[in-house]
Amino acid sequence: MVTANPLLIPEIRLMLAEGDTAGLHDVASELHPASVAEFSEGLDDDEIWRLLAAVPHERQAEIFPYYPIARQVRLVEAADNDRLGPLIEAMAADNRADLLRALDDDKVEAILPLVAKAERHDIRLLLSCPEGSAGALMTTEYASLPAEVTAGEAVARLRSQAPATESIYYIYVLDAQRRLVGIVSLRSLILARPTAPVTDLMQRDPIRVGITAPRDEVVQKLARYDFLAIPVVDDDDRLVGIVTHDDVLDAVRQEATDDAQRIAAVSPLGESYLDAAVSTMTWKRGVWLAVLFATAALTAMVLAKSPIDHAWLIPFIPLVIASGGNSGNQSATLVITALSTGDCRLEDWPRILRREVVLGLLLGALLAVPGYLLALVYAPSPTAALVIPLTVMAVVMFGSLVGSALPLVFRSAGLDPALMSNPFVSAIVDVVGIVIYTLVAMAMLG
Amino acid sequence: MVTANPLLIPEIRLMLAEGDTAGLHDVASELHPASVAEFSEGLDDDEIWRLLAAVPHERQAEIFPYYPIARQVRLVEAADNDRLGPLIEAMAADNRADLLRALDDDKVEAILPLVAKAERHDIRLLLSCPEGSAGALMTTEYASLPAEVTAGEAVARLRSQAPATESIYYIYVLDAQRRLVGIVSLRSLILARPTAPVTDLMQRDPIRVGITAPRDEVVQKLARYDFLAIPVVDDDDRLVGIVTHDDVLDAVRQEATDDAQRIAAVSPLGESYLDAAVSTMTWKRGVWLAVLFATAALTAMVLAKSPIDHAWLIPFIPLVIASGGNSGNQSATLVITALSTGDCRLEDWPRILRREVVLGLLLGALLAVPGYLLALVYAPSPTAALVIPLTVMAVVMFGSLVGSALPLVFRSAGLDPALMSNPFVSAIVDVVGIVIYTLVAMAMLG
Repeated sequence: MVTANPLLIPEIRLMLAEGDTAGLHDVASELHPASVAEFSEGLDDDEIWRLLAAVPHERQAEIFPYYPIARQVRLVEAADNDRLGPLIEAMAADNRADLLRALDDDKVEAILPLVAKAERHDIRLLLSCPEGSAGALMTTEYASLPAEVTAGEAVARLRSQAPATESIYYIYVLDAQRRLVGIVSLRSLILARPTAPVTDLMQRDPIRVGITAPRDEVVQKLARYDFLAIPVVDDDDRLVGIVTHDDVLDAVRQEATDDAQRIAAVSPLGESYLDAAVSTMTWKRGVWLAVLFATAALTAMVLAKSPIDHAWLIPFIPLVIASGGNSGNQSATLVITALSTGDCRLEDWPRILRREVVLGLLLGALLAVPGYLLALVYAPSPTAALVIPLTVMAVVMFGSLVGSALPLVFRSAGLDPALMSNPFVSAIVDVVGIVIYTLVAMAMLG
Repeated sequence: MVTANPLLIPEIRLMLAEGDTAGLHDVASELHPASVAEFSEGLDDDEIWRLLAAVPHERQAEIFPYYPIARQVRLVEAADNDRLGPLIEAMAADNRADLLRALDDDKVEAILPLVAKAERHDIRLLLSCPEGSAGALMTTEYASLPAEVTAGEAVARLRSQAPATESIYYIYVLDAQRRLVGIVSLRSLILARPTAPVTDLMQRDPIRVGITAPRDEVVQKLARYDFLAIPVVDDDDRLVGIVTHDDVLDAVRQEATDDAQRIAAVSPLGESYLDAAVSTMTWKRGVWLAVLFATAALTAMVLAKSPIDHAWLIPFIPLVIASGGNSGNQSATLVITALSTGDCRLEDWPRILRREVVLGLLLGALLAVPGYLLALVYAPSPTAALVIPLTVMAVVMFGSLVGSALPLVFRSAGLDPALMSNPFVSAIVDVVGIVIYTLVAMAMLG
């Protein structure tokens, strides 16, 4: 099996030193482009450019996007323009847009004149789409046909267009205004009689997304219908691009990591854990730790004012707070994941809150039992011990409610529900937990 | 655009009542199978079977897998065998295996005799693969060719095989022992001269996975190389199936949800949030809440024994505990996501722990400053107030270390790092946090 092999690096350095162009050409053209990028990442920028120079621009353009985006930026900044122009021109439109989005605006303006005019239009279209929209995920390379051809003519046209990528497998059928009227798969073109009209083979009115549709909608539709690609249309229903399965998979994996990090109160790293600089990590974790610390400080100040003066109540403080926080985090995560997978929608809020109240009651009752047993050990009387189970019930219920409501509030305000939900849940539940504890203790013990 | 419309349900009920087979046929055959499943989910089991009966088994087999798996099970249990046999036989191998895995063993044994003998072998192979392995994700339907044919013959063979699905887009080239020697894309067969030998067009030694490879490896390889499908081989390198992009996307989305829920101490629901029964939710949350409660109880007991008797120290207890827990959860989540995306490996543990010690020190120092300022308000002297920043520093560092080490320990023990890491992190950090607090206070204040 061909896999990336770091042992290749010394060999490549030897080839570079000896000017062995034929050897470099073989290395860079025989492996999968992803493998070439993987093993050559260990080379320095100049060495990579000399390795790439051994193969044609089309092949360079296949390899280049597989370097991590931060490395692509460094390589572009290290390169001179005669190397850059043909490479950028040969890159797939979506990969090129990803790269240009990561560059400084000045650098982009310096690069654009190197690219043919027709491509420039595509680049400006893709760059103008807001991040996280269907337009920002799409590529402008797709195969299209007018409706009036036959299957045989269609295959002949595809042969002459010879699209560079797998976008050949779905062919989009357009009318004279480039409006999307159908999809036909290469499979059905191959299996059909050559004289069959494409209109008989195509699926009419295919599923599509608007250019400004959010990423979640693109992912949900592509996943639901098992598509290889989903067409993107503008406001007039004209086809402007497609989002392919591989870009959706990358987006889903990135989004899952970002969400998990946000839920744990880390600003998404956006790069590999081991590659992130310590200063970046300190910042991305420190900001949220400081926010959480501020909320904990608020809890401490409330607690300092609390008239809880029965010594046996003090060891139970962390327990009471943690019960509410844990149940709140569970609810928040369940609602966040359900919103992001499309399992529930904002309009379901009455059902969600009803469920959480019931669950909070049940879970609170569940924890009240061991809570009471533990309290009996320390409390002066069985009646006094009731403070703990009553508080636990109230706090768990309150936690569930706040935990489920906050992501809904964030979503309805147009914010990412994963963003800050858990820190806020902790903050609110901790402070209110202490207040509840104090009130219950005063009511029961005077 | 064709989308699912719940308003269709009354119309379909009318058609069913009137025995309007032609109308039912149109409804069930003109939309995307996913849409048919989506809008008909609101019907009862018997109505769904009568709707499906209006179309041929091949079409039924396309629609059926789009129902949620729990509904598929109910439908199978409600059906009689003459309906079931042809449907099961017509289903795609991977969808069928998913369904059979969800059924009782007795039911599976009752169904198997309804299926042709050749299919039964495939079914037993797929069912024997452990959950979460490449074998459990794969389908046994793929297009294959011997190496010695030409591009023109290859296309003619594909026409006569007419594979039912998109698996036609990659064709696997096998030797006489069915060992995988290459992959050729339908695209290159179409674009090539008909007389070109397939051996000239194919990519040799393609990336593959073993049948027992874990799901993570399948996802990482398919995502890295942007494949439509990845071949699965047995111990003798014989091709046994392929895992397709749509199943990987589903697996990634499911895995992300499961992981997020595990991190928040909820046993993965495995079904939609709103569909899960309250009893199920209570159980899946209650178990972990009880575990967390037990650890909080331990903290309470340690605290009850702690000789902290300076009243001003008490309000700082939740703050000290929370600082360690928050930083521990950040570290745990970062390491869990990095392990699951392949950004870091178990062997990287010395680097991970070194990073976390440095980060813990920096973050601890960061929080020590506001901690000291807050302590000055309540402490009897500036020297006494030093207890808080010193404890915060030690606890944050300890939290980072435990948070990063536990997922590594879980992974090296062959367990899912997301499983229970955060509850354990909280448990350990809380208890040790109280001990550290007590020790620092005793050292500083006597």
